[in-house]
Formats: sequence, C-alpha cells, structure tokens
Amino acid sequence: MFESAELGHKIDKKTYDKEVPALREALLDAQFDLARTKAFPVIILIGGVDGAGKGETVNTLNSWMDPRAIRSNAMGDPSDEERERPPMWRFWRALPPRGTIGVFFGSWYTAPIVDRVMKKTRDAQLAKSIEEIKRFEKMLADEGALILKFWFHLSRQQQARRLKKLEKDPRTRWRVTDTDWERFKVYNRFREVSERTLRQTSVAHAPWFAVEGLDEPYRNLTVGKAILDALRKRLDNKHPKSIVVEPAPPPSVDHLDLLNSLDLTQKLTEKDYKTDLEKWAGHLNLLTRDPGFRKKSVLVVFEGNDAAGKGGAIRRVTGAVDARIYQVVPVAAPTDEERAQPYLWRFWRHLPRLGHIAIFDRSWYGRVLVERVQNFCSTQDWLRAYSEINDFEEEMARHHILLVKFWLAISASEQMRRFKEREATGFKRFKLTDEDWRNRRRWKDYARAVCDMVDRTSTEIAPWTLVEANDKYFARIKVLKTICNRIEAGL
Amino acid sequence: MFESAELGHKIDKKTYDKEVPALREALLDAQFDLARTKAFPVIILIGGVDGAGKGETVNTLNSWMDPRAIRSNAMGDPSDEERERPPMWRFWRALPPRGTIGVFFGSWYTAPIVDRVMKKTRDAQLAKSIEEIKRFEKMLADEGALILKFWFHLSRQQQARRLKKLEKDPRTRWRVTDTDWERFKVYNRFREVSERTLRQTSVAHAPWFAVEGLDEPYRNLTVGKAILDALRKRLDNKHPKSIVVEPAPPPSVDHLDLLNSLDLTQKLTEKDYKTDLEKWAGHLNLLTRDPGFRKKSVLVVFEGNDAAGKGGAIRRVTGAVDARIYQVVPVAAPTDEERAQPYLWRFWRHLPRLGHIAIFDRSWYGRVLVERVQNFCSTQDWLRAYSEINDFEEEMARHHILLVKFWLAISASEQMRRFKEREATGFKRFKLTDEDWRNRRRWKDYARAVCDMVDRTSTEIAPWTLVEANDKYFARIKVLKTICNRIEAGL
Repeated sequence: MFESAELGHKIDKKTYDKEVPALREALLDAQFDLARTKAFPVIILIGGVDGAGKGETVNTLNSWMDPRAIRSNAMGDPSDEERERPPMWRFWRALPPRGTIGVFFGSWYTAPIVDRVMKKTRDAQLAKSIEEIKRFEKMLADEGALILKFWFHLSRQQQARRLKKLEKDPRTRWRVTDTDWERFKVYNRFREVSERTLRQTSVAHAPWFAVEGLDEPYRNLTVGKAILDALRKRLDNKHPKSIVVEPAPPPSVDHLDLLNSLDLTQKLTEKDYKTDLEKWAGHLNLLTRDPGFRKKSVLVVFEGNDAAGKGGAIRRVTGAVDARIYQVVPVAAPTDEERAQPYLWRFWRHLPRLGHIAIFDRSWYGRVLVERVQNFCSTQDWLRAYSEINDFEEEMARHHILLVKFWLAISASEQMRRFKEREATGFKRFKLTDEDWRNRRRWKDYARAVCDMVDRTSTEIAPWTLVEANDKYFARIKVLKTICNRIEAGL
Repeated sequence: MFESAELGHKIDKKTYDKEVPALREALLDAQFDLARTKAFPVIILIGGVDGAGKGETVNTLNSWMDPRAIRSNAMGDPSDEERERPPMWRFWRALPPRGTIGVFFGSWYTAPIVDRVMKKTRDAQLAKSIEEIKRFEKMLADEGALILKFWFHLSRQQQARRLKKLEKDPRTRWRVTDTDWERFKVYNRFREVSERTLRQTSVAHAPWFAVEGLDEPYRNLTVGKAILDALRKRLDNKHPKSIVVEPAPPPSVDHLDLLNSLDLTQKLTEKDYKTDLEKWAGHLNLLTRDPGFRKKSVLVVFEGNDAAGKGGAIRRVTGAVDARIYQVVPVAAPTDEERAQPYLWRFWRHLPRLGHIAIFDRSWYGRVLVERVQNFCSTQDWLRAYSEINDFEEEMARHHILLVKFWLAISASEQMRRFKEREATGFKRFKLTDEDWRNRRRWKDYARAVCDMVDRTSTEIAPWTLVEANDKYFARIKVLKTICNRIEAGL
C-alpha cells in the first residue's frame, strides 16, 4: 500500500508554478458546478503519519478553492454533548450537505487504528470496526456522496528527520508535541495496522490515496489533481451509482404471517385498564428516577396502521414521565436541510442525551414501509435500508441507548370503523386525509412490508413488539409494560 | 405582584372534574390550529419558588395537549458547547419553530435573579439585565412569538410547609434537595428581587402570570386557561403586532456622507502588495497561535457593493489561517428551518466556539441593506433591526467574541467596469445576475442605507471599517491589517 509513497517523489518549482494556475482554475470551476447543481456532497478524509504535511496541504487546497463551500472539521476530543451520543454522532452532524465539501482531519478511522496500535483492542475488534466502516461508507456512497480518502505517508526515517527539522525551527517548534514522539516510537506497528486497514477499506466508491508527505509541491499537486479528477468525472458523467441489489424477500407460501397470526380480539375492561395504567405509569415514572437511568437513554419507535392509536399510546407514555426528560419527534416530510443529507441524518440529529427519552412518532422505518409501498424511493434504496437500519440501531444499542420498537396493528375492519367514526364526528383534528385512503388501498402491500421489516430488523438489541391494537386499552398497557420491562432489563 | 397569589386559592374536585374535559378539548383544538397554520411560535417560561408545583403542572398540561408539538427544555447547567458561546446561545438554539410550543424551565430570568439574591451582582447590574431581557422579548414579540410567563408562587410559610411535606413522604423525598433549603433561607430576598424583576418585565406582549402554587387543581386550571385564552385570541383575531415605529433617520443636508467622503483612489503596487500580504498574513497566522487566542473567538463580517471583491478578500484571510479553526458562512436565502425562526436565529447558530474564527460573507445586516432597499421587509422590521443587532453584537462582545465588520466600497464607475469585464470574459463563476443590475439601479438608496447602518451600528465594541476597494490590493491589505490589530488589541 505504501510502496509508491516511499519513492522520494518530488516536483520541481518550475513545473509546480506552471501547473498550479490551471489546476486552481479547474478546481474552482468544478466547485462552482458542484455548488450550482447541488448534485452530491464531497467527503474528504485526511489521515496519516504526523509531520507528513496534512495541515499544510489542506490549507493550500483551501486557498486554491472557494472557502465558502468547504468546511474543515478538526475531529479532536469530543464535546460532552458528543460523548453522550454514539461515537458516530459527531461525524453525522458534521457531514457536508449536497453541493459542498467537508474535510475531516481525523475520522472514523482514527480510533480503530490508534486503539489497535496501542493494544487497547485486538485484531478481531479491528476487523469488526473495519466491517462497520465499510458498511457506513457504502451507505454514504449509495446516498450519492463522493468519498475521497488521503493518507499522508512518510517512511520511518523520513518521519524522524521531519519531526527533528520542525523542532529545530522556532517558528514550527510548537507543531511537534510529545504525542508525536510517543507515536513515532510505535511507527512500525502504526504502519502495519494502518496499512491493513487502508488495504481493506480502499474500494471503488471510497478509495484511499497514499500520498508521500516529503515534498510539498508533490503533495499539493497529487491531492489537488485527485480531487479535481474525481469531482470532474462525477460532475460530467453523472456516473451511475453502483448498487448491489439484494434479492427481495420471498412471500410466505402458506399465507400465514406475523400480522395475520396476531390475536386482535385481546382486550381490557375500562376498570382493569385504569388499574393497570396507574400501576405501569407509576412504575415507568420510578424507573426514570433510578440513579442508573442517568447513564442510559431510551428511544421508543412508534409505527402502525393509520388510526391504530399511536398518538393515544404516546400520550400515555409521556403522561408518565417528567416533561423535562422526554422529547417527542413527529416524523413528517423532511426539511430542505434534511433533504440535503443522507436519509438517516434527520434521525441521527434527534438522538437523546443520557438520561433522556426520545419518542419517535413514525421513524426511519418509513423507508421500508410507505416509501417502499408507494414507490417513493427506488427498490435499491429500500432494500439497502434494512442493513443500514440494523447498523444504525447497533450503534445506538452499543452506546447505552435502549431501543423499543412498536408496531400497532389493527384489523382492516377496525380501521374502517375508525375512519367512519372520524368522518361522522367530523372533528377536524382527526380529519381523514387522502393519504389515509391511499394507504388503505394498499393494505396487503403494507402487511407484506411490515412482515419483511420485522423479519429483517427485529434483533436482540432492538426487538420489535407487535401490539394488538383493536382494543386501545389493551394496546396502551402493552406498550407501557414493554417499555418498563425493557428499561428494567437494561438498568 | 404576589398579593393575589397568596389568597389561598382553591378549586374543589367537583368543579375541576367538570371543567377539565372542555379545557383539554379546547387546548387540543387551539394547538391543532397552531400546528396547521404555523402562524407563530409559543414560548412559555416557567419560574418561581421551589416546591410550588412547576413540574407537576407542566406535566399535567403536557398530558392534556399533544406532546408532539410541545418541547420542554430543562435549562440546567450549560454543556461545554454552550459555555463556549454567549449565554443566550442556548436559549436561541432551543427556541420553538413556528407552529410549536416551547416550554422553558428556568430561563433568561434565572441567572439575573439568583445572582442578585446571592449578592453576586448589584442593583445596577440587575437593572441592566432587565433592560436586556425586555429588549430581547420585544424582539421575539415583534417577530411574532406569543410569549407567556408563569411564576409559581408560595408564601414563606406555605413553602416551608410544602418542602417539609415533600420530605416526609418517601415517594417525594428525592425532590427536596439541599439547594432548596439553602434558597428557602433567603426567601425574603428572593421574593423581593423576583417581585421587582417581574413587575418591570410584565408587558403586554410578554405578560407574567403569578400563580399561587398551593392547590394543584387551581394551578392547572389557571395556567391551562391562560394559555388557551392567549392562544385562541391570537389565532382568531390575527391580532396585529403592536410595533413602536422609530423615526427613519434623516438624510444628510449637505450631501456629504461617509461613503462619498472616502478616498477611493488609494492603491498599492503589486510589489508592495506582495510584501504586505506576506507580512500581515504571517502576522495573523501567529496571532491565531497565541495561547490567549484559545480563550477568544473572532467573527468577521463582510458586506460591500456587488463586485467589490469580498470573495477575494475572504480568501486572503482564510489563506492565512489553519483550515481547522475557521469557518466561512455564506449567507444566502434562509432554509425552511431558518424561516420558521426569528430573523437572527440563522446567525446565532453559526457563532464560533472559543479559539475559532467565523467569517460571514454577508450577514445580519442584510435586513438594513438589501431588505430595506428592495422592500423585502416592512419599514418597522428594518427599523427595529438596528437595536436588535446592537444587542446581538453586545452579547457577542461580552462573551469574548472579537467582532470585525467590513464594508467594501467601490465607486459606481468601478462597479460598471467590473460588471462589463465579467460580461466580456463571460466566465460562469462570475456571471452577472439580474440581482446585480437590480441593486445597481438603486445605488443611491443603498448608499443611504449603508450610511445609516454605519451610523447606527458602529460601536466601540463592534466598529465598522470602511474599506476603499477600488484597488483590490489596497483593500485586501487593509482588511488583513484591521483584523490583526483587532485581535492584537483583544488578546
């Protein structure tokens, strides 16, 4: 991987001065087209050995291009708001919107590589991280992002010389820290681990470029040209996204499925409901006051048929909990800021801090439900969503977020009864929309989509609970009970 | 202020049970209309003495209303990201968008009142805080927000009884902390300071409601009805905003103004420019590496005539600074999330952290420039903007943000020369837009607006620098030099 980056590359001043003006012009030009078309976001990762000129080269590139549409992110120590969310949260919040360029100094590669070098982790963990990174970058690419990864390399000897030189000069001395020398001591391990990581993560949609860090003109031209080339190709060719199409899940051959095997006749009397409500609401309230709760977050997802009673169930949950620790996130049409980002971005931004509960009224599952059934996205998009969602939820679960997911199921006849009731009372808050009828016409397709969704995304860490909701009392108690049990098990 | 809240108000259970269903229904109804029309945001502040039932009442109200369009904010200790910005930043980021309700437990009143009670501040400081709060709330109201402020009150005796009662019951014991008893000791001071603060800040567009905190049914009904009443009135009457119209500034009688008295013939030779550029860029770079810089932020505003060379000047600044510490904020049309908030919101969100530089390519001054001249907002809106902007900048300045504001001025003939040059080269990045010609036709109106802007917003803490920009070299050096001097003076 690094062989070509140890050849002692060099560009003489004359060539450099000759080439730079045209390159700058072409870069500005490409950047202008990118900003105008807002066609895709550009994600540039900068990594490598200390002293290899990462900062200098990015500064030079920034001075060549229009700094208004580039954002550089120094991913140093996370803030406390970041530490209270899954590690990837800070990268998600820094993702560049379409039409702009985001440069990351330090990235999702930093921790896995450094931890392995410092022997905080083992090979198996590194391998797992690499797999996760690959899936994450695949998702970004599928969402249209142009991903370019630059690794600034120096041989051991070169690095030693470079650090010493920087130290000698009073103007650059500040740039060499003890950490740099600490890391230099483990150069060979660092090289070995990063070489392996780079090799395994350099793929067509997110390639690594190893850049020899010795000669500044060489570095600048190499990186500048690589960016220009990739930008130009994507802008001009409207290069089709390369998507691996997974097979659609087959239907059940005996027509028995998760939904039609539910016993929707289950119910509670009003009296039992009131007793149970008080009991479970009180229990939930106490659980959220448990000292251990401060170190957890809870995320509850509500999905279900139209008129299945999601709103009522949500109010029984919020009614049990202090207003200061929950937030209800109603999922409606995305805002334009959300549309300029990958699909999951608008859910990531609402992840709760520790000690808090986020309740999603509809969720990221929209992609494999309404968007699938009504053809609002391509088949490829909803098919790849299953694994993207599983990855998302795994990241949450690993970061002390207790996930509870509900599907509120009613029968077609009960839904009709409720629709008619709403029409009759004509109460505007429950006005039936065209959408409700549109969805109802695709009842079977929805059922199919729900069963596939549960099959593919009900995991041990983020199980689905199907809630028989023909009887509202029964449904609400089952919801409260499930949340209580989940928190209790998680504390 | 508190007399009526010490009368021992009480609602019997029968009346309560009779009134609640209709109130709930009406509240839900109003909330639905609010969400549908997205007519305005509702800001509810909750303050008062400990143990007066603030949390219980808000929880009850939340259970009555639709929790999906209410967000409760517990404004406890600020996070580190919040501490690195002016104190109001955390309130700005939590402001509810139009169509929703934001409840604040603890608010911009908390610190001024508590600090005065604890004698950390003097009367003069409290008076200053009160004036600032009044201007802030006036701005919110002018932006259309419905502001309701509830103060939960208990007499000294009542509070003592209440805290003791809570302490006795094992289920509520956790709610009484040492802080509560600490504060109880200073009850009289607390009452006196908050009484004065409330009296001075209870105005028609942001009234205080003192609520006796003893009886839960009374509390709930009082607050619920006050919210309903205010919501309903505003929703139904399309109540016109009450705006005090300031007089427009008079024109200069001798036609001499800040702009036409500039000496636009000032220039630099290319040679001098190159020497100076190296010198000042290097100086700026060193200043940003000064240890003291970590405790400051810099915010640079670029305004100027079209084609005055803002982009080029910005690139000379960014070229001098490490990409990891600056961010350029190009100000274009607001996104829909920004449009759902008060005017200044989209600038607040980009305030830099400590040790960082934010460069605004156009800014909040758009309101008193293009929006004024092209009638994009009402006369009232741009007239009130001057003082709102001064308040905004004062908050920044007080929080270690060094503000530098540039107006890049060129002559009308120089602008024409540049427009024609752009037309001739036809280079797409500098394509002339209809807007450029539209603005040019209003040259005199712009000049007038610029002079008014400088007169009204050039302050010691945030001075304007007029930059003679007919010669680009001269302009760029003046910009760099000014920024350096400002940072140097601020460190």
